[in-house]
Amino acid sequence: MSLIVQKFGGTSVANADRINAVAERVARYKKEGHQIIVVVSAMSGETNKLIGLAEEIMETPDSRELDAIVSTGEQVTAGLTALALINMGIPAKSYAGHQIKILTDQAFTKARIQKIDEKVIRDDLDKGLVVVVAGFQGVDNEGNITTLGRGGSDTTAVAIAAAIKADECQIYTDVDGIYTTDPRVVKEARRLKSITFEEMLEMASLGSKVLQTRSVEFAGKYKVKLRVLSSFEANGDGTIITFEEDEKMEDPIISGIAFNRDEAEINILGVPDTPGIAYQILCPIADANIDVDMIIQNVSRDGTTDFTFTVHKRDLKATLDILNNQVKKEISPREIIGNDKIAKLSLVGVGMRSHAGVASKMFKTLSHEGINISTISTSEIKISIILEEKMLDVAVKALHKAFELDKA
Amino acid sequence: MSLIVQKFGGTSVANADRINAVAERVARYKKEGHQIIVVVSAMSGETNKLIGLAEEIMETPDSRELDAIVSTGEQVTAGLTALALINMGIPAKSYAGHQIKILTDQAFTKARIQKIDEKVIRDDLDKGLVVVVAGFQGVDNEGNITTLGRGGSDTTAVAIAAAIKADECQIYTDVDGIYTTDPRVVKEARRLKSITFEEMLEMASLGSKVLQTRSVEFAGKYKVKLRVLSSFEANGDGTIITFEEDEKMEDPIISGIAFNRDEAEINILGVPDTPGIAYQILCPIADANIDVDMIIQNVSRDGTTDFTFTVHKRDLKATLDILNNQVKKEISPREIIGNDKIAKLSLVGVGMRSHAGVASKMFKTLSHEGINISTISTSEIKISIILEEKMLDVAVKALHKAFELDKA
Repeated sequence: MSLIVQKFGGTSVANADRINAVAERVARYKKEGHQIIVVVSAMSGETNKLIGLAEEIMETPDSRELDAIVSTGEQVTAGLTALALINMGIPAKSYAGHQIKILTDQAFTKARIQKIDEKVIRDDLDKGLVVVVAGFQGVDNEGNITTLGRGGSDTTAVAIAAAIKADECQIYTDVDGIYTTDPRVVKEARRLKSITFEEMLEMASLGSKVLQTRSVEFAGKYKVKLRVLSSFEANGDGTIITFEEDEKMEDPIISGIAFNRDEAEINILGVPDTPGIAYQILCPIADANIDVDMIIQNVSRDGTTDFTFTVHKRDLKATLDILNNQVKKEISPREIIGNDKIAKLSLVGVGMRSHAGVASKMFKTLSHEGINISTISTSEIKISIILEEKMLDVAVKALHKAFELDKA
Repeated sequence: MSLIVQKFGGTSVANADRINAVAERVARYKKEGHQIIVVVSAMSGETNKLIGLAEEIMETPDSRELDAIVSTGEQVTAGLTALALINMGIPAKSYAGHQIKILTDQAFTKARIQKIDEKVIRDDLDKGLVVVVAGFQGVDNEGNITTLGRGGSDTTAVAIAAAIKADECQIYTDVDGIYTTDPRVVKEARRLKSITFEEMLEMASLGSKVLQTRSVEFAGKYKVKLRVLSSFEANGDGTIITFEEDEKMEDPIISGIAFNRDEAEINILGVPDTPGIAYQILCPIADANIDVDMIIQNVSRDGTTDFTFTVHKRDLKATLDILNNQVKKEISPREIIGNDKIAKLSLVGVGMRSHAGVASKMFKTLSHEGINISTISTSEIKISIILEEKMLDVAVKALHKAFELDKA
């Protein structure tokens, strides 16, 4: 008998039929003798509908009220899921975040979980109940309802699994696991049996959006065994995300190829290579709440240097406006160039640490395909490049083959 | 400066425009220096949508889960209403029932309020905030979410007004007050400036469904000054419901004419006039959860009597089935007749107590119109009759004129 947390996302609970399918799966685990905690998201589309209503009334809705409104989506799904279980003869009870309770800080719309009281859950499990928890939400120490931000239901599931020391936290999605790369781009893409947390973090933050980065960090921190599974397939082991690298020792050098078409690149050419230049450039951008992803600065030449960073495509114009209107006169660059016809591609693998030659093999492969690389950035377990967006598919396919990712 | 509770129903908050209109009205009162607590229902149609979802999954939904699901409708409206106020520069905060908290018993879907902690409300009012409360819901002593049953938002408003000793509880509806009778039937129908609680109870339970009977009882019990107003008109004093009869001493004998087309009449003719006969007839009907409204039994003749009662039209067939299959053989009536082509009409007025001749004037008027009365039943402040449904409009018009209800 295991203690399992199962999290189902919006498309898995999109309507009554899907909710019944979720309940059937839970019932199957329950009948095998496991103790089950179910965490659910809002029905797909519901959160956006509620945000739309709020924005119709107030352009930038007050965040306390927005959280009170939006959190109802998960509360409804939790109730419906409990109903579906009860209807199948499985005793179940639903809980909103404040009922558990899931204590968070007061950062409305992006609250962080501080503490989970596992007593309510434990008591119900001991009575043989399935506990259904509304994801994505909590309550602050003054009793205000908070939400954890987009994708927060994953975090709820992991946090509950950590608090109650679950044997496994299963995340059900619309894919059946983590792949070596996107199967829509490379048809030979292969499902990984396991992946390390570090690799998963790189894969997740790079656009393989199966799991929310934050929930993966959380799982790593609290040593929660995560498994990604498909909610649309009855069987399958999915991909397990391990925190022990040893389990992966026999694995290949590269685990996968992640990519992201959502970023735009900004090159600030010929800026004086003086201390504080990065701060001068990035501070006004951060002040405008624009997230910066990659940051690359190369050694200086003739006392000037080139500074490159990436932002989301939708933020390109705002970023260029800030640079041209606020930053330019202070740093006097030769030129500021914005380019949204780019893509980012990363090779990810813990094996890279101990194997030389990954980078050279990568660049050789791309060069053979006639693909030009604009920017390179590396970490211990990944190599990221920026290339022309239109060359992305060719690059992913070539690298997938060169690193033999189609072979187990 | 007064402390006012304002309750807005589903049609008053049906969309963003309506919610903004509600906020404007609240803002106007606030700017006049009043302290305001707003109680809102779910957007019209929302509660039925949520119940529909639940019933799609479970034919008769588990009541604890149903309450958790359905209560979200009011939570959303409360948040949206607070947003609309904040957007107008009026500081506001929304609360779900469990946040206030509104403590109820554990009777899910029809819970009764036991206690309201007014501290949260009082603190916010003292800070100059408008407090927006989700109607219709509460929380039991174990932290489960409960609902008060249909129309429960009126009850929430009255209960909060009682707990916090508000100067007035304003119920905003789609009519601008209580009328002498339905203006769709009698165009001379006149809005009453005031009506007593007793009269209101009779009017409400007889089909003038402006206020929920339970909230009127509650207001009477706790001496809450109720006022019915239109949410679609900017001005107007509505109708005040008084608990002091003195205030009405100058008022006419009759306050209004209520009627109801939803009932069916059942006559059980020629039953033995023995003790326990009413019990024998009505007990199996109550067991089938069929509500009985009027019950009339006249003196016996030749040792037998006639027993008449009314049920909702939709229950007529089920009632006749029970009578014919279970009751008939025990009581051996001469005949059982069901008739759903009837209507009920009542004259209501506290003045009736001290004025003879109301009944005779009523019957004379109807007789002049050639209207036949099948059944008569009276209480201290009302006279109810059953007549042919097709004669109802003629009867209401004739009585409205005869009792000069069009004149203030």
